[in-house]
Amino acid sequence: MAYNLLKGKKGIIFGALNDMSIAWKVAQRAHEEGAQIVLTNAPIAMRMGEITKLAEACGNALVVPADATSDDDLNNLFEKSMEHLGGPVDFVLHSIGMSPNVRKAKHYTETNYDFYHKTMDISAMSLHRVLKVAMEKDAIKEWGSVVALSYIAAQRVFPDYNDMADAKSLLESIARSFGYHYGVKKKVRINTISQSPTMTTAGSGVKGFNEFVAYADAMSPLGNASGHDCANYVISMFSDLTRYVTMQNLFHDGGYSFTGVSESVIAKFKNPEEA
Amino acid sequence: MAYNLLKGKKGIIFGALNDMSIAWKVAQRAHEEGAQIVLTNAPIAMRMGEITKLAEACGNALVVPADATSDDDLNNLFEKSMEHLGGPVDFVLHSIGMSPNVRKAKHYTETNYDFYHKTMDISAMSLHRVLKVAMEKDAIKEWGSVVALSYIAAQRVFPDYNDMADAKSLLESIARSFGYHYGVKKKVRINTISQSPTMTTAGSGVKGFNEFVAYADAMSPLGNASGHDCANYVISMFSDLTRYVTMQNLFHDGGYSFTGVSESVIAKFKNPEEA
Amino acid sequence: MAYNLLKGKKGIIFGALNDMSIAWKVAQRAHEEGAQIVLTNAPIAMRMGEITKLAEACGNALVVPADATSDDDLNNLFEKSMEHLGGPVDFVLHSIGMSPNVRKAKHYTETNYDFYHKTMDISAMSLHRVLKVAMEKDAIKEWGSVVALSYIAAQRVFPDYNDMADAKSLLESIARSFGYHYGVKKKVRINTISQSPTMTTAGSGVKGFNEFVAYADAMSPLGNASGHDCANYVISMFSDLTRYVTMQNLFHDGGYSFTGVSESVIAKFKNPEEA
Amino acid sequence: MAYNLLKGKKGIIFGALNDMSIAWKVAQRAHEEGAQIVLTNAPIAMRMGEITKLAEACGNALVVPADATSDDDLNNLFEKSMEHLGGPVDFVLHSIGMSPNVRKAKHYTETNYDFYHKTMDISAMSLHRVLKVAMEKDAIKEWGSVVALSYIAAQRVFPDYNDMADAKSLLESIARSFGYHYGVKKKVRINTISQSPTMTTAGSGVKGFNEFVAYADAMSPLGNASGHDCANYVISMFSDLTRYVTMQNLFHDGGYSFTGVSESVIAKFKNPEEA
Repeated sequence: MAYNLLKGKKGIIFGALNDMSIAWKVAQRAHEEGAQIVLTNAPIAMRMGEITKLAEACGNALVVPADATSDDDLNNLFEKSMEHLGGPVDFVLHSIGMSPNVRKAKHYTETNYDFYHKTMDISAMSLHRVLKVAMEKDAIKEWGSVVALSYIAAQRVFPDYNDMADAKSLLESIARSFGYHYGVKKKVRINTISQSPTMTTAGSGVKGFNEFVAYADAMSPLGNASGHDCANYVISMFSDLTRYVTMQNLFHDGGYSFTGVSESVIAKFKNPEEA
Repeated sequence: MAYNLLKGKKGIIFGALNDMSIAWKVAQRAHEEGAQIVLTNAPIAMRMGEITKLAEACGNALVVPADATSDDDLNNLFEKSMEHLGGPVDFVLHSIGMSPNVRKAKHYTETNYDFYHKTMDISAMSLHRVLKVAMEKDAIKEWGSVVALSYIAAQRVFPDYNDMADAKSLLESIARSFGYHYGVKKKVRINTISQSPTMTTAGSGVKGFNEFVAYADAMSPLGNASGHDCANYVISMFSDLTRYVTMQNLFHDGGYSFTGVSESVIAKFKNPEEA
Repeated sequence: MAYNLLKGKKGIIFGALNDMSIAWKVAQRAHEEGAQIVLTNAPIAMRMGEITKLAEACGNALVVPADATSDDDLNNLFEKSMEHLGGPVDFVLHSIGMSPNVRKAKHYTETNYDFYHKTMDISAMSLHRVLKVAMEKDAIKEWGSVVALSYIAAQRVFPDYNDMADAKSLLESIARSFGYHYGVKKKVRINTISQSPTMTTAGSGVKGFNEFVAYADAMSPLGNASGHDCANYVISMFSDLTRYVTMQNLFHDGGYSFTGVSESVIAKFKNPEEA
Repeated sequence: MAYNLLKGKKGIIFGALNDMSIAWKVAQRAHEEGAQIVLTNAPIAMRMGEITKLAEACGNALVVPADATSDDDLNNLFEKSMEHLGGPVDFVLHSIGMSPNVRKAKHYTETNYDFYHKTMDISAMSLHRVLKVAMEKDAIKEWGSVVALSYIAAQRVFPDYNDMADAKSLLESIARSFGYHYGVKKKVRINTISQSPTMTTAGSGVKGFNEFVAYADAMSPLGNASGHDCANYVISMFSDLTRYVTMQNLFHDGGYSFTGVSESVIAKFKNPEEA
């Protein structure tokens, strides 16, 4: 299905690593919906990825490597993008997150603070950097839409999610804070989407992720949302149908966030003799 | 603009009183997007309204009067709708609210409890009644989408909103509770949209509404959302792009809900000598 | 332990059925802390209870039967209390809840609406009635404190909690709404406390309650809060230490409310072969 | 008034700069309530402050300078404190916040990222550092209570609050995350208190603070909470009356947080001709 929802729109998509990535699926769907896109990822991630294949499948999209913690790289990215696209963009997807503490298996209570600063810089402050450069260059059109991917660990504790939980809280705060200022100044809207746990390369690095995916699925009345469905939701947020939604964190999770307990989870606590 | 987002879909729209109504605009947009609809409203409201004009503009939509507090009327509505549409529906809009206490200018602290029960019955329990009848008749398809219109008074106090605030809290709770059960049983999703104050016939009955609209506009980075934009947002929630969003209350308010204070509001508190 | 925290204070306590009741424990603790109290409960509940024993243990407290859905009974209660105590009160505990739908085992999606109205009237609107009568009679002192007991089902779905979830949402909305007006008028503050599931006579009527208590305990970093600890927390809210807390819902639940998942719950989802 | 609420308890209080500081008032109240305390602040802040006067007034409390971003300093602080107090503590107050971006008047959208990292380190990560050292040294007793001071800018945007808003979001996330782990391991509870804007030396550095205090007062049904009342609330959280409250952010703000608009604020939006 395609509706021409993004016909004539232009955008930049961060974080498409491989075909498991939500950003990858967003790129595909944005292309299908008529958008012209630029793809970007960290240089180190790009060497591992298959982003050129994606670029070809998306109408020979421009690919610009950029480390989202480098203001120089971001300046270059926006300059190249505006040159290539012929002006400012309509949408931006921020799908960036990495925790050295998770990678090095440091327990949350034994965190390494240099790593912690890096987790914040890569996973949260990078959104601020993107928006600051965009505002300086007036690189997002009026009523443009920025979406960053978040997770419910920003609101509640999931023990193995480690300092990424704090990073997602910070990310959502940045979306609100910058959303206010960019909204007042240029009607640009900024939201985060809090997605079901998804089997991406990043997700699968979290300890106990398989059990957690099963638990979340059992807790969600509609089951876990897939990456493909998430991409559809992002498209709706980029479209003109959602122009007055801003500074929100939007749960896309099959109802997980407002389910206290499901019958299938509680069944695990039944006394076997009573069951 | 029209995208065929609802092509082949069928739905029931409650609450289109006149062309200021959000439900009216949703009906128009749903028709434009390819849906076939049935219109309904309370018999007493219909005599005052111009619903037949709307029905004509929406491809000669069927109009079925129904008091949303009457189980008989709702049974009749769903039977007639399924007969006319040839089966179960894909979407339902609930845009129903009325407070006798507001109408009779009873202060919140001096409420009349018979009126209060009526406010709850009309404005909140009516959603439960609609869903109960729909579930009994299996009248909503899998992955169908139900949207009810709410207001941020469900979360925070707006003194003149009176017992409608309590009704909206109850409405949102019913959306969550029924959303769980209907999600588990049939993948039907149920959400509320919390819209900016809107100059409808209902809204204009609230005391001090003009000032309040001005205040909300000054507090919202994007300004107040219009009824037309709200209709667009409802369409996105009826579409297949948002299938895993359920049991949520979604703010469609130009950023009002997460703005603590705006620079234009705080300016009113400046000492004139300093200003 | 006793601190004279409520020395010289006077209050009314609704809902002490027997020594499992939280209200019973609050009465004991209020007495220990130096307060003079009046006890009340529905006439029908009192016959079953042992409230006179409690009254004796609390310095021969006055007992006044009152159906909290009867304005006449509430008028009589406040008149008798003010006469007995020599003036207006400092605090009120509302611990009232009953659902005919739960008692008759009606599933949430098949609710009986007469019952549903009763659930709302008894479990939520009763708080409004108490406050309305109190305001009319100026029966609560400035900086007085009102606490109503709630449950997290007001925010998230617990399938077996049925229409009591909707009642708790309504109760919390009433606490906010009336809290605004009573605060502005008389500095009276009104809060709800959202307590861990507790093995009271009321709680044990909910289907699957034992499993649920075990689940909540496994999800709470500190374990479930006991009724005794809840009473202590209520005392702190009645004291002068918390005078600027109003219109809040306060979770007293060992951390349950902000725990997404605990290690002991997720362990139930481990593949046995991996474990 | 004093109740011996903290009799026999020991604690560490961060952030008492002068007699306008909330931490200063907490120290005084903790002493009055029977606690033995250790005072600490950043070396640079101490030279400016009058902390020795406070120490004398609090039973010759030990004063240990510590930069809360230095693990060495924090190690030394806990060692000295435990030696002086004869063992682990019962409570800790974290009242620490500073933003170089605010001091240098950098607009939020033009932030300096080195400053931003410092804001996070000083105002949020310092809580993590304190807790990490405490856990390593087993320096907090079972059922001990940690409170950090926060602000509602963690939830909603207050434009002039700048990157301190993001820091408070991060602080609250750290309180939740560490609260889970410390709760499971040692029953230690960790909460944040979100206080009304308060005329402290720190608060008065924020642009437009006077107007903002007036606005918040007009929006709060009970008016703004004073620093003295905040100290009382902190004492209640250190006491044994609140043992099952953890991982919460608690609003102490006269009802501000759940007031959408007050009649006195809306009056500013009245058309003068209608008024």
